[in-house]
Amino acid sequence: HGARAWASSVLLLAVWRIGADDPRRAVHGLKVGLALALVSVFYYTRTLYDGVGGAAMWAVLTVVVVLEYTVGGCVYKGLNRAIATASAAVVALGVHWIASKSDDKFEPFIRSGSVFLLAAAATSSRFIPTVKARFDYGVTIFILTYSLVAVSGYRVDALVSMAEQRVCTISIGVSICLAVSALICPVWAGQELHLATARNMEKLAGAVEACEQDESTNNKKQQPSSKAEGYKCVLNSKASEDSLSNLARWEPPHGGFGFRHPYGQYKNVGAAMRHCAYCVEALTGCVRSAGEVHPAKAPGRRQLANACTRVAARCARVLREASGSVRSMTTSRAVDMAVADMNAAVEEMQADLAATSALMDAAAQLFTVTSLLIEVSSRIE
Amino acid sequence: HGARAWASSVLLLAVWRIGADDPRRAVHGLKVGLALALVSVFYYTRTLYDGVGGAAMWAVLTVVVVLEYTVGGCVYKGLNRAIATASAAVVALGVHWIASKSDDKFEPFIRSGSVFLLAAAATSSRFIPTVKARFDYGVTIFILTYSLVAVSGYRVDALVSMAEQRVCTISIGVSICLAVSALICPVWAGQELHLATARNMEKLAGAVEACEQDESTNNKKQQPSSKAEGYKCVLNSKASEDSLSNLARWEPPHGGFGFRHPYGQYKNVGAAMRHCAYCVEALTGCVRSAGEVHPAKAPGRRQLANACTRVAARCARVLREASGSVRSMTTSRAVDMAVADMNAAVEEMQADLAATSALMDAAAQLFTVTSLLIEVSSRIE
Repeated sequence: HGARAWASSVLLLAVWRIGADDPRRAVHGLKVGLALALVSVFYYTRTLYDGVGGAAMWAVLTVVVVLEYTVGGCVYKGLNRAIATASAAVVALGVHWIASKSDDKFEPFIRSGSVFLLAAAATSSRFIPTVKARFDYGVTIFILTYSLVAVSGYRVDALVSMAEQRVCTISIGVSICLAVSALICPVWAGQELHLATARNMEKLAGAVEACEQDESTNNKKQQPSSKAEGYKCVLNSKASEDSLSNLARWEPPHGGFGFRHPYGQYKNVGAAMRHCAYCVEALTGCVRSAGEVHPAKAPGRRQLANACTRVAARCARVLREASGSVRSMTTSRAVDMAVADMNAAVEEMQADLAATSALMDAAAQLFTVTSLLIEVSSRIE
Repeated sequence: HGARAWASSVLLLAVWRIGADDPRRAVHGLKVGLALALVSVFYYTRTLYDGVGGAAMWAVLTVVVVLEYTVGGCVYKGLNRAIATASAAVVALGVHWIASKSDDKFEPFIRSGSVFLLAAAATSSRFIPTVKARFDYGVTIFILTYSLVAVSGYRVDALVSMAEQRVCTISIGVSICLAVSALICPVWAGQELHLATARNMEKLAGAVEACEQDESTNNKKQQPSSKAEGYKCVLNSKASEDSLSNLARWEPPHGGFGFRHPYGQYKNVGAAMRHCAYCVEALTGCVRSAGEVHPAKAPGRRQLANACTRVAARCARVLREASGSVRSMTTSRAVDMAVADMNAAVEEMQADLAATSALMDAAAQLFTVTSLLIEVSSRIE
């Protein structure tokens, strides 16, 4: 008993810490509780309960599985569930009609055979990338509803009214979910994606600066600072970016995000930033190993180190400007100017290089970074 | 009508192509169909149907949502569903007993209040990383079952027998799923992870070789070959590796995979390989831009190019040996020898470098690659 109390207090503490870290997550928990409390009113009100019969449980079921953290996720699941349920019910009622007209002996075989075929085809279709990204949940619900209606038609007589009640309760559940999700402290997937993109750019800028500072101060033994490590989360951002941009497509217009906001572009910008992060990763490795390989080649190196510092500072500035312009959703001329500045610095460094030809690595890397940055900035409308 | 027929034939064609690409996916579709056909027997057999009453639909519902592509996924969802349903039912019956003893006026408030609190706490706990990785589905099912039992207790009289029937049908559904998933052409998440790791190593080896061939033949204008592009899927392997190793934990021992097979180690090896891939990415960029920056410095370059080719060939050999030793699950001495060989080549190249000090970039990159490779090989038991 004591162990259980201890475990539950540890869990409560963890839940409390999550709420303190990001209040929106605690709010999401409260929203789920609220939606369930709202839907339970169906059981308490005699008239409502009689209206939908025993099907009230489908509203509860819908609320639990459809209410997602982001509005986009909720719309995606809600629409998929509603449409898949309705279309599967129509198909299943058609098959039910055929099965009930046929011989009693063959009836189970027709029902199970159709379930087998449709389930196999629908499950295989989930491996198609487009279906997987946009309709995965809908396909599951289609199989579920089809099997339930087609098979239970063998025992249940009032199948049409049962299907009607279910579609009705599911749409009630979906409406409650959409209202709670979009009206009470909404978390928009599009906005999350937008802010994550801007934040990642700033992290990259910080990492380029920190890396160059380490280089110029010959700071090899110290642990890398947290600023220098910031780019690491950019490396693995693909999965979360993909899912957010998939969900953001389902969202209605809100704030600065119009009806057909180009969420796909964020993926491209994200890919370019990941390329940048790979380069920063390699650059960090070079800076660390460069100190070990040729420790003292002072004269030629000093000049190039200055050029590198200039280039890195301008890289960081371009990234910061780009991040600012993404944040404010405007195309500022400051970005263009910063890019021009950076290119000038890179050319200067290349001229230095032609003379000295050392520290090639950092320059080539920065050159790559630069060209990627130009790509990034050209992709921001 | 014509458009609909066209759309469905396109879908069927896509499904067919998936089956042709990877027959196991088509088999998975057939397995889902089979499991549903098996479960529909409950509706056709009078004695079975009467035994579980109207609760037979829960078996169908369970089969549709629990039967996953991999055995690990199926065990994860099945166990989570069974345990969460049983524990939520026990808690809900306790609360139901309290609520039914209390004043009629307060009853709805006690029921909805408990649902609100438990749902809010459980939803928040889903943001804890460990809970998210291992029990996410279980928490959803806990909320679902608790709300259904606690709230419908207001209208349903035979609540205990209803809960019993549901737990019974859900366990029947889970057993059918586990049997179909593990006995008919099983797809083991552990094995998938294992093979993906070995395959990624080989792709990296191919990319290092191809990159170095491009370098030595000065092949800058041609499109990069498919071999040289192979490393790109290593860059984004994190998400699939994480999910596979999470699912693999749930799998029973099978083949060469024991009870506590160190699936977590695959994540570390995967991270090291991604570092390698970042380096290869940067190296490819360097090779391409190096040709543009200083096109003709033949004498010093030739010697280093040879050294580079040697190092790259040995890098690739180490990767291939490591991949082979992962595939056969043995520690071969060939890997150690290949690593020693590679280190010798790297040292040779560093000596050349001290003399000529050009092409620093490739060398520094390969040095990084080498050190990472040593890391990788040291992590394979």
